[in-house]
Amino acid sequence: MVYVVALGGNAIAGPGLRVDYDSMLAAIKSAMRALLPLIVSRDLRLVVTHGNGPHVGLLAEALLRAGDHGLPQPLHVLTAMTQAWIGSMIKHVGEVLTRERGLEARFEVVATRVLVEVGPNTPMKPVGRLYTREEAEALASRLGWVMVEDPRGGWRRGVPSPPPLKVLDVDTVTTLLEGGFHVVACGGGGIPVVENDGVYRPVEAVVDKDLCSSKLAVALDADLLAILTDVKGVAVNYRKPGERWLRELKVDEARRLLERGEFPPGSMGPKVEAAIQYAEATGRRAVIGSLKEAYRVLRLESGTIIEP
Amino acid sequence: MVYVVALGGNAIAGPGLRVDYDSMLAAIKSAMRALLPLIVSRDLRLVVTHGNGPHVGLLAEALLRAGDHGLPQPLHVLTAMTQAWIGSMIKHVGEVLTRERGLEARFEVVATRVLVEVGPNTPMKPVGRLYTREEAEALASRLGWVMVEDPRGGWRRGVPSPPPLKVLDVDTVTTLLEGGFHVVACGGGGIPVVENDGVYRPVEAVVDKDLCSSKLAVALDADLLAILTDVKGVAVNYRKPGERWLRELKVDEARRLLERGEFPPGSMGPKVEAAIQYAEATGRRAVIGSLKEAYRVLRLESGTIIEP
Repeated sequence: MVYVVALGGNAIAGPGLRVDYDSMLAAIKSAMRALLPLIVSRDLRLVVTHGNGPHVGLLAEALLRAGDHGLPQPLHVLTAMTQAWIGSMIKHVGEVLTRERGLEARFEVVATRVLVEVGPNTPMKPVGRLYTREEAEALASRLGWVMVEDPRGGWRRGVPSPPPLKVLDVDTVTTLLEGGFHVVACGGGGIPVVENDGVYRPVEAVVDKDLCSSKLAVALDADLLAILTDVKGVAVNYRKPGERWLRELKVDEARRLLERGEFPPGSMGPKVEAAIQYAEATGRRAVIGSLKEAYRVLRLESGTIIEP
Repeated sequence: MVYVVALGGNAIAGPGLRVDYDSMLAAIKSAMRALLPLIVSRDLRLVVTHGNGPHVGLLAEALLRAGDHGLPQPLHVLTAMTQAWIGSMIKHVGEVLTRERGLEARFEVVATRVLVEVGPNTPMKPVGRLYTREEAEALASRLGWVMVEDPRGGWRRGVPSPPPLKVLDVDTVTTLLEGGFHVVACGGGGIPVVENDGVYRPVEAVVDKDLCSSKLAVALDADLLAILTDVKGVAVNYRKPGERWLRELKVDEARRLLERGEFPPGSMGPKVEAAIQYAEATGRRAVIGSLKEAYRVLRLESGTIIEP
């Protein structure tokens, strides 16, 4: 059996979204401990996917300050770096936790690319920190960044955020799963590429990690897609009067709530969309729940189940 | 057949060791074009290894300037990042070059760890840029860095540089080679780990990429180890009166010249040592030659052959 388990980028950072090594290690240990009974299960292989928001933000800011020697450095390169940064820590923690218990599990990190199309109508997503107008103009002229005004005041970098069409490195993941590895894949939503005449070229874009995970889960014909986050599941009227947590949700009801704007974009919206896409394509159940309850969520004893 | 091909870190940077994307892409394209006839050969799988000196230096400097939010960040994490940075570009270029010719080749990047022992007698290697005494003292107290005085004046960070004992992710490399992939491995000499009670933990250290490549080539029982650099091979009296390029070198003669100090440490020394270790362990030939002549070097028509 293969389970695809998506971890939020914020869950791999420390308090205040710190991404120093010790803060990250503590967060990853906590997540991997919650998954441990599944990691050591003989009949199960995990494909762990993860976000990278705080990490890619730090790298981009750091490179900006280090002078022109290493610039420009496209976002897809930074995404690749965070795949290895976070991935090698997940691999390390997964192997250490199992060996400390006298067991053995092997992990591998796959530099996952994801096929997209980018055009004038592709939605833009703001990334990184707020800049003043002067800083924004300087960055636009120095690095060709597209800057978008932020409702909070100030400017942020805007990056195309196209839907994933296809995960490209599925055969690598399959080869490793068949070789007995757990796999870390789709880090940061994958390295986005476009296709021209059968040739893939990386592009400046970011892909939602839950939608990428869903595409991968479908391509792998995985037995479960579990999206783990910092809330206990899907709610209607979230943080509003009449808040109600849902234990089960049929795909057409989920689609209806999504279209009604019940789930905010950039937050629960893409998670529900990802779960719907997986459930519809495979006829299997997806689950959205709390990382702290990971084991119970993956046993469908906690969280919100999206029913095909 | 499996060939292990080691590329120097400087060869993956642009003029002046620039590591912006376009400079790196041009350098990697040039290297991969030279290897193309081997990449598309049906009976051959390549394991490409690479240095990361200019790249890890930039990342370390960039993170230092980005404030405490992401610090401390150990060197082994930066090495993992450069494995993905450089590795994903090699993968991309390798696949694009072959598809442009209507052929197909698959590449995968392995987050390679390497087992070391670090003790009080481990040699220290200076890394990164020169700092003033005041900067050096501030870095030592802020981040616990060991600072070493540089003969050119000023201070540099000193990092333990232990010999590699064993490459740990050989089974990943083997799984992928058997699945038909070319593999990028041992980036930057690998992520160094120490072992305690069967548990591996990453340590602050750097491992020579040629020695790591040699260990990997032995573990894979590779058919050839080729170390590609910016000179045409091994010379005695290099850049001195009586300079003589060697076409072939028996291992015991190579060992004798190495011990006589003919080959400088940090340059040709570890390359010759790596070639000797491989040739002695496998009874096969290693070759050291120019990246520009890569195809001819791998056919043993150029460069210096180290004979077992």
